[in-house]
Amino acid sequence: MIFSSDNWAGAHPVIAESLVKAASGYASAYGTSDLDKKVEKTLSEIFERDVAVFFVATGTAANSLALSSANRPGGHVFCHREAHVNVDECGAPEFFSHGSRMTPVDGSLGKIDPVKLEAEIRRFPPGFVHGGQPMAITMTQATEAGTVYSLDEIDVIAHIARKFKLPLHMDGARFANALVTLDVTPAEMTWKRGIDLLSFGGTKNGCWCAEALILFDTAKASQMHYLRKRSGQLFSKSRFIAAQFDAYLAGGLWLDLARHANGMANRLAEGIEASNGARLAWPSGSNELFVILKKDTAKKLEEGGAVFYDWPVPYTLAGSIAADEGLYRLVTSFATSREDVEQFIAAC
Amino acid sequence: MIFSSDNWAGAHPVIAESLVKAASGYASAYGTSDLDKKVEKTLSEIFERDVAVFFVATGTAANSLALSSANRPGGHVFCHREAHVNVDECGAPEFFSHGSRMTPVDGSLGKIDPVKLEAEIRRFPPGFVHGGQPMAITMTQATEAGTVYSLDEIDVIAHIARKFKLPLHMDGARFANALVTLDVTPAEMTWKRGIDLLSFGGTKNGCWCAEALILFDTAKASQMHYLRKRSGQLFSKSRFIAAQFDAYLAGGLWLDLARHANGMANRLAEGIEASNGARLAWPSGSNELFVILKKDTAKKLEEGGAVFYDWPVPYTLAGSIAADEGLYRLVTSFATSREDVEQFIAAC
Amino acid sequence: MIFSSDNWAGAHPVIAESLVKAASGYASAYGTSDLDKKVEKTLSEIFERDVAVFFVATGTAANSLALSSANRPGGHVFCHREAHVNVDECGAPEFFSHGSRMTPVDGSLGKIDPVKLEAEIRRFPPGFVHGGQPMAITMTQATEAGTVYSLDEIDVIAHIARKFKLPLHMDGARFANALVTLDVTPAEMTWKRGIDLLSFGGTKNGCWCAEALILFDTAKASQMHYLRKRSGQLFSKSRFIAAQFDAYLAGGLWLDLARHANGMANRLAEGIEASNGARLAWPSGSNELFVILKKDTAKKLEEGGAVFYDWPVPYTLAGSIAADEGLYRLVTSFATSREDVEQFIAAC
Amino acid sequence: MIFSSDNWAGAHPVIAESLVKAASGYASAYGTSDLDKKVEKTLSEIFERDVAVFFVATGTAANSLALSSANRPGGHVFCHREAHVNVDECGAPEFFSHGSRMTPVDGSLGKIDPVKLEAEIRRFPPGFVHGGQPMAITMTQATEAGTVYSLDEIDVIAHIARKFKLPLHMDGARFANALVTLDVTPAEMTWKRGIDLLSFGGTKNGCWCAEALILFDTAKASQMHYLRKRSGQLFSKSRFIAAQFDAYLAGGLWLDLARHANGMANRLAEGIEASNGARLAWPSGSNELFVILKKDTAKKLEEGGAVFYDWPVPYTLAGSIAADEGLYRLVTSFATSREDVEQFIAAC
Repeated sequence: MIFSSDNWAGAHPVIAESLVKAASGYASAYGTSDLDKKVEKTLSEIFERDVAVFFVATGTAANSLALSSANRPGGHVFCHREAHVNVDECGAPEFFSHGSRMTPVDGSLGKIDPVKLEAEIRRFPPGFVHGGQPMAITMTQATEAGTVYSLDEIDVIAHIARKFKLPLHMDGARFANALVTLDVTPAEMTWKRGIDLLSFGGTKNGCWCAEALILFDTAKASQMHYLRKRSGQLFSKSRFIAAQFDAYLAGGLWLDLARHANGMANRLAEGIEASNGARLAWPSGSNELFVILKKDTAKKLEEGGAVFYDWPVPYTLAGSIAADEGLYRLVTSFATSREDVEQFIAAC
Repeated sequence: MIFSSDNWAGAHPVIAESLVKAASGYASAYGTSDLDKKVEKTLSEIFERDVAVFFVATGTAANSLALSSANRPGGHVFCHREAHVNVDECGAPEFFSHGSRMTPVDGSLGKIDPVKLEAEIRRFPPGFVHGGQPMAITMTQATEAGTVYSLDEIDVIAHIARKFKLPLHMDGARFANALVTLDVTPAEMTWKRGIDLLSFGGTKNGCWCAEALILFDTAKASQMHYLRKRSGQLFSKSRFIAAQFDAYLAGGLWLDLARHANGMANRLAEGIEASNGARLAWPSGSNELFVILKKDTAKKLEEGGAVFYDWPVPYTLAGSIAADEGLYRLVTSFATSREDVEQFIAAC
Repeated sequence: MIFSSDNWAGAHPVIAESLVKAASGYASAYGTSDLDKKVEKTLSEIFERDVAVFFVATGTAANSLALSSANRPGGHVFCHREAHVNVDECGAPEFFSHGSRMTPVDGSLGKIDPVKLEAEIRRFPPGFVHGGQPMAITMTQATEAGTVYSLDEIDVIAHIARKFKLPLHMDGARFANALVTLDVTPAEMTWKRGIDLLSFGGTKNGCWCAEALILFDTAKASQMHYLRKRSGQLFSKSRFIAAQFDAYLAGGLWLDLARHANGMANRLAEGIEASNGARLAWPSGSNELFVILKKDTAKKLEEGGAVFYDWPVPYTLAGSIAADEGLYRLVTSFATSREDVEQFIAAC
Repeated sequence: MIFSSDNWAGAHPVIAESLVKAASGYASAYGTSDLDKKVEKTLSEIFERDVAVFFVATGTAANSLALSSANRPGGHVFCHREAHVNVDECGAPEFFSHGSRMTPVDGSLGKIDPVKLEAEIRRFPPGFVHGGQPMAITMTQATEAGTVYSLDEIDVIAHIARKFKLPLHMDGARFANALVTLDVTPAEMTWKRGIDLLSFGGTKNGCWCAEALILFDTAKASQMHYLRKRSGQLFSKSRFIAAQFDAYLAGGLWLDLARHANGMANRLAEGIEASNGARLAWPSGSNELFVILKKDTAKKLEEGGAVFYDWPVPYTLAGSIAADEGLYRLVTSFATSREDVEQFIAAC
């Protein structure tokens, strides 16, 4: 009953086999092989336009490179207060962009409040050098709270980005999970809304290590090649990433894996809502659930073999959690089995 | 007849299979899994002391993180003029260390000339702020010229490092190739000589993507954890690197692969020396050969299917290459077949 | 009636004359002249211990260099939410320390709340790389709210710094103003409390351009020399700073100037409290007052020739300011005349 | 007999007096005062076009900010091997531009050899990420060797800059000295030739501290405001720089001071050439002379009160200096007296 994180799973067998198949033979290095090009072409088809694709080692690298491409001295990147770039990347975005600042914006359910976003941006009017200047906006889809921005909600953020002429980045570490929830196309959830750069994550959804930074404006690609290389993120045997994505994207495997993970989370949510001892802290839309349990119950579940994380209680929940209760995060993945889910529900 | 680079090969079947085996099941993330720990233990055994091991995405990242751990304002890193950090990393070492400088030192056969090294270091006496200050020395083993420092030669460089209290880094992108040439232990070629930090490369010798930064002083590890994470180099599913190293190191596979690559290079060298149309530019000791061919011959070889790179003629060769000749680099790997080698020799 | 900022004044005549006197003759450059050394000695006497003194161009530079000397990857600098480093330096501290983060701590009256400070530091436990790590604490004396930390209050912050082994920096842009308010010695307000680094400002108190970074641990000076030079902050004709400080410190001029500025602020405060149309937002202790005025009154004052700034209303004042009122900042300086003060009071 | 450096002098009396005059009264801060604007206007007149002017603390800051405005990842700044940015700024240019590289180009007499410059640039073809990419060219006028580029020579460098679409920076620490030697207008020596950014130095020519970065393309100014503030280079009482420049530029004082310094150097040169014991290493065109003396003679001169620096012998002089001779640098300034010059000549 491993619900700690989707990155505790290994790799899907089809993806692992793709690596074995690609292991023999020679191919040119540094992202120039046929397989690299094939994946770039597949992604262009999936996104319904030419895209520039940059494989990198981690989501942190994808996010940080994306934001650094928008770099300005004294720059502010506006993000949700709980965004991965703000709380979980050890200053990588600041490092990659030489000291820019992650400026947090509040909002319920893990989503940036657009009114607060605009107010924050207006704190830094053009030419007033003391406070620095706006530089980019980044949003996370699915969010760190397990929720999913609707297309309309993305539109609102994108409108603000255009108004202030700021590039808009989407951290898609769980892109597939959000996509199958909304049941829209990748294009509809990204550039058709106004997303300029996308961290397209495969690792949490069944790959070993497959992260891509996708630029919808291919004219921006020439400098990104240098930014990536300079950060030690250009793989020599780049096709080992390509081989994973090749299998991941073929025949819609990536969507199937996300549907499975989301389905397991939905089943967990149903079971928890139906139980006496647990309830959801808020409704989710992806493969992450945030659950309120009695601390005793949590302890018993852990003793019974369940693995999951305590989670800091956000101020928005203050008052709705009893002293003997805690907040816990449950994450499902492509590898989550129905048996584990049912066992967990039974134990609640 | 692919002799372009050892990073054009894929992965050894045993290593690819190890990835498949590790793909199922769960493991804790970010380098904390049992498999990660097992590899760290194996490396401590191989190096005959406790070492701190940091998996990273690329050799560039390993080198740059190593040097950044020695960071000083206005710092000079002394390296061979042809070192990878100096000519092939797009400023990554400077970026990771916020603007330090790679200060090149000359030396024949790809090796730092110790007299020139000391003279360069002395250009920056303590307290004279205008010129900056020494910060680290890095040497490459095997070198970019395909040669190998002897233990005595490493001793001389290490002596200078100690004299000026500078940390000494070894770029071991082709560590195994050098090791089997010298026929010494990993400890003898590194910390017993005075090496403080080692970029331990597996990618060029049969892995997909397996690079480790090894610190011989484990007290320095605590800050390296932050440096690595901050640069987007901390893999979530870190065990996919561990699985590769696990197979790579087991039963001495890594040494066997290096012996094969070196053996193929040696056979190539013999064949070339015995031929009329080609000669070695200088003796090699690893899996890289630098060969002088008539340009016509090179062209015919390429038309016959051989793949290899033109190489810039170093000033040390000026005068010994005719106008109708060129310098070419041939690299063998674990995957190089005897047939390809013999075919190339026959074609010379 | 210029109350906009203490940096709108020019230089005190004695200080300007000191520059004229130093203008002739030769002196060695880059901080090595006799006059430079004399000032360093004077400061050591004033602080009752050997100190290392670094002249720099601006308070921003002094603060940023101080914090960068404590640099750690993923580092957090804990500061008051309204601190100059956090809101008025365009990312300079982040730039100088290559991407560290200013982590704001709340507290009333411009002072760091020690309980909240400790809670913030504990959010980043050792070894948990994702969130980064504590790196330094900085406090401002006098604060941006015009208030002054008592010696006991400094002790509490210093105790926390020692507990977490963090260097403690004091931004003393208005150091003299705080000192004369507390009526203690410079040593008592700094290193005897546990301050490690001090930005010692002279510009706002009667100099043209005289800022010094003071290190109480002189062993840390050797690297600061390089940090300063690397940031373009090492003056060639450094004695032009020394000449200002020489006059500034001689015979306690600096304290007299601060007493004058504070006295003018006190008189303003009295007058405002006694008036019908204005009141203090909170009690001050230095040369900055924050005043609540009817917007109409403010407008009339401005039309009458008074110059001062609107100030953003902090959340702590919400509810205590009427809709037709505003918050305004008044700053006095060495140059403020009693006439201007009385005229302003009369106009209230 | 102080010939050590032009930064050993103090300030010209007229400039010191200007500071005294500006000391009283109030003026808005951070470069917005009337006096700041007046100097910007004067410089626009002197350069015969609208220019954007940024006062900074040091020439190092001006150079580093100029180059950082052209920043590119993995960027190479091409400069003369002996350029101040390359040998005397403790890595400031690399720091300001987050790890760019100063790539030295050889050339006799302190001037970049255009053929070598083009060859160096071509080493980094577009898209080949491993080596990095060209980013800017910087030239020094007058050069570090005391020589002066002719207008034609500047044209050739500018032509290469345009060909490779690289911004061209001029380090004018001794701009005035070069200008009066060529006897041309400031416009003719800069933007009419193709210079994009200029470090306009006043400190070495009679000011206390007066350095300006001048942008000929004023559209680039908006980001420079943030770059300057972020580096701690925005003075609050900025008018103290303006007051110096105001006096410096008025009535051509700056040109008179440079003519005096150059005249003293010329007289020194004549005297040295006519002497038996000394000769010029190469002809100069500014206020710096490089002189070959018997080491005994040098010692005697020093014992007689002359102050000057030993200088490293460049490889271009190898063979033309005897074992008992040394190379020495003599620098004159606005403050150099004819008596000192004649006394030195007599002592030769």
